Amino acid sequence: MSDSPWYELEERLEANDVEAVRELFEEWSESDRTHVASHLSTDQLGSLLDVLGAEAGAELIECLPLSQAVSVIETVEPDAAASILAELSSDERADVLGAVAEPEREAILDRTEPATAEDVRALLEYPPDTAGGLMHTEFFSLRSRYTAAEAIDEIRRAAETLSRYSIQYLYAIDDQKRLEGVVPLRSLLLAPPDAEISEIMIADPVSFGALDSLDRLYAMFQEEEFLGAPVVDEAGVLLGVVERAAVDDATIEEAESDHMKSLGIASGEELRSMPSLERSRKRLAWLSINILLNLLGASVIAAYESTLQGAIALAVFLPIISDMSGCSGNQAVAVSLRELSLGVVRPAELLHVLGKEALVGIVNGIALGALLAGVATLWRGDAMLGAVVGMALGINTVLAVSVGGTVPLLIKRMGWDPALASGPILTTLTDVCGFFLTLSFAAAVLV
Amino acid sequence: MSDSPWYELEERLEANDVEAVRELFEEWSESDRTHVASHLSTDQLGSLLDVLGAEAGAELIECLPLSQAVSVIETVEPDAAASILAELSSDERADVLGAVAEPEREAILDRTEPATAEDVRALLEYPPDTAGGLMHTEFFSLRSRYTAAEAIDEIRRAAETLSRYSIQYLYAIDDQKRLEGVVPLRSLLLAPPDAEISEIMIADPVSFGALDSLDRLYAMFQEEEFLGAPVVDEAGVLLGVVERAAVDDATIEEAESDHMKSLGIASGEELRSMPSLERSRKRLAWLSINILLNLLGASVIAAYESTLQGAIALAVFLPIISDMSGCSGNQAVAVSLRELSLGVVRPAELLHVLGKEALVGIVNGIALGALLAGVATLWRGDAMLGAVVGMALGINTVLAVSVGGTVPLLIKRMGWDPALASGPILTTLTDVCGFFLTLSFAAAVLV
Repeated sequence: MSDSPWYELEERLEANDVEAVRELFEEWSESDRTHVASHLSTDQLGSLLDVLGAEAGAELIECLPLSQAVSVIETVEPDAAASILAELSSDERADVLGAVAEPEREAILDRTEPATAEDVRALLEYPPDTAGGLMHTEFFSLRSRYTAAEAIDEIRRAAETLSRYSIQYLYAIDDQKRLEGVVPLRSLLLAPPDAEISEIMIADPVSFGALDSLDRLYAMFQEEEFLGAPVVDEAGVLLGVVERAAVDDATIEEAESDHMKSLGIASGEELRSMPSLERSRKRLAWLSINILLNLLGASVIAAYESTLQGAIALAVFLPIISDMSGCSGNQAVAVSLRELSLGVVRPAELLHVLGKEALVGIVNGIALGALLAGVATLWRGDAMLGAVVGMALGINTVLAVSVGGTVPLLIKRMGWDPALASGPILTTLTDVCGFFLTLSFAAAVLV
Repeated sequence: MSDSPWYELEERLEANDVEAVRELFEEWSESDRTHVASHLSTDQLGSLLDVLGAEAGAELIECLPLSQAVSVIETVEPDAAASILAELSSDERADVLGAVAEPEREAILDRTEPATAEDVRALLEYPPDTAGGLMHTEFFSLRSRYTAAEAIDEIRRAAETLSRYSIQYLYAIDDQKRLEGVVPLRSLLLAPPDAEISEIMIADPVSFGALDSLDRLYAMFQEEEFLGAPVVDEAGVLLGVVERAAVDDATIEEAESDHMKSLGIASGEELRSMPSLERSRKRLAWLSINILLNLLGASVIAAYESTLQGAIALAVFLPIISDMSGCSGNQAVAVSLRELSLGVVRPAELLHVLGKEALVGIVNGIALGALLAGVATLWRGDAMLGAVVGMALGINTVLAVSVGGTVPLLIKRMGWDPALASGPILTTLTDVCGFFLTLSFAAAVLV
């Protein structure tokens, strides 16, 4: 693959050379496709979809990040969109359509086969990060009174449909379609032909409600070796199957999204293929709040302007104290967020975390305070100045680490998103305290 | 489960009431076990392992974070450790032993069944984030000239061993143990009894070399629906099987570790169950470098002390300019790290990224510059001061966003870890430039 494969594609698209475009697309690996697609505009992607047709178009959609898949599906004709989406699995189809704007979604669903459209509408009822939002509705169920031989015959008949999905389990149901048990393929393979399904199935299997959370799903799949688990409604009727892989993928996306949010990309997703203005807007929302929060720290400096005038060298150290306290605090935030997600700490255990963090804060406070005191004394030749900035950084580090460790737990208890809110709360507090400590110490001993 | 379940456990441990301890342990879910274990000291965990015995002990080890599992295995008697580790799967056993200190590891391996010990030593040859490091060596292989009926008989004979692992595929090998094909259980189920394995297997299957990277494994499992893939040596001999779940888990851990590293926890892992001094040391390593890098920015302020003396209000705004530029730049860093990991951008595409980021930087620079200029003018009643800080923040934002977007690509091209190095390089540069812009503008117009 050359360095600029999308130029080649653009040329062939502009020449409207359908065969040549398809050939090029077939040559690429999935990672090449993702890479090329990220360099095309939404309109170009739309033309590419039109040229590729439903089946290859669906392959393209599958390798795009969701936001890009949604933009391009909104661009193409509803007929084309409907036939592309028909090629996706039920959960991927629902993910894309769930994010498509209302009018386009309705236009596409009008052109979709009624049973599939109904299935999509049912799946869209569930929030994305729940068992219902993550499950797919392609599964193989059969009555528990069948024999193993009859079950194998059934599978043989459905073999073509089944071959599109990596089915690992069969689901045994009763006459009201309520889940009775799970039959691993291996059990079926090893069973005597006349054994009843009810004898070889795992009875009372682990199952989820449609609204069970991603965290709960992830915890279960960490505990158990299952490759998938059934999702049932309140009456116990089998609704779909959530696979381990879908849960893992959603967990990876959530971790990345939390990281983006902690840096102030409020939606948790940004890619350079999005329009620049939208990208600016998503980042600015948080930056504007942050600049206003910064003013709280600044107003502490303003209150001590005469102190600062008398000891101007302090101005050199204020940004260091702000930055270092923020860094120390954010390390503690990261450890707490990780421990919350691993389940080794729970939101109620404030005192436990405070005790553990205070200890680290004291050690690091002494070390960093001494380091800054030494540097300031040597650089400015003023031991008193060194003592002031070292003391201030030391105490503020203890505070920053203690607050950083506990703030995510507090925010989680209040029901907010700790990834989004912990950082700004922490740095505002550490700025205010850091500047106050430095300048009030200076007012006492320097000026 | 009560709020403080570990007190109950501590009491029973101290009373040496073996039965009561085992009962309590059996009652807990895996998440309870993880949570309780995180509140016990390594010695207490060691006593708990001794009481539980090999099988339940292995269950406990499985639900501990790796670093904690390693400390406790190092604490118990080598005999006990060997019998606990014998209960783990080959990949988990190698993960734990790979992190155990050399002398303890040798003592444990001396007490391990020779075939298992040899297997561990072979697995330890591979770095953790490679196909060899992630694979397990429990798989079911058979000659391709067998018939389906013979294969099913073989499986029946091995059923007890197999039931401990979630086997989905059988591997067809030739007389030199070289991989010839993969047989999904479903194909075996649907095949006529006298069909030869060579007819029903997937010939020339996707396979990995033992040193293939985690990124490559993850990309393949994203492209294909497989639940596992074979790992072979240079001669094509089957070494083990790497499962999708193992690759997903390692990817989740890598994402979390990158996040920790980007905040200055250099090892990429920290839990509060680690000794406080070790936790301090891991955080301090990076903080001490950071404080020295901060001095570069501070020295710019020091060079302009007379300017600052003449316009002391500037000191109020310097920390804001430092913090806001750092935030804007880190947003761009996060988007680049994500795009690199998704494969939508490649390290060579500096100019492409620069073009895209500069645009966002200009829009956000104008917006944030105008906001700060307005605030400063209103607050201090000095339009010239507002113009200086607004201009400086605006220009520095363009710079921070452009540098933030491109620095991870540059670092990756140089073969370093962009998660670890991007942040400090970025903020040092934005501090130096931000302070220089503010103070040189002020020197020109204010003083």
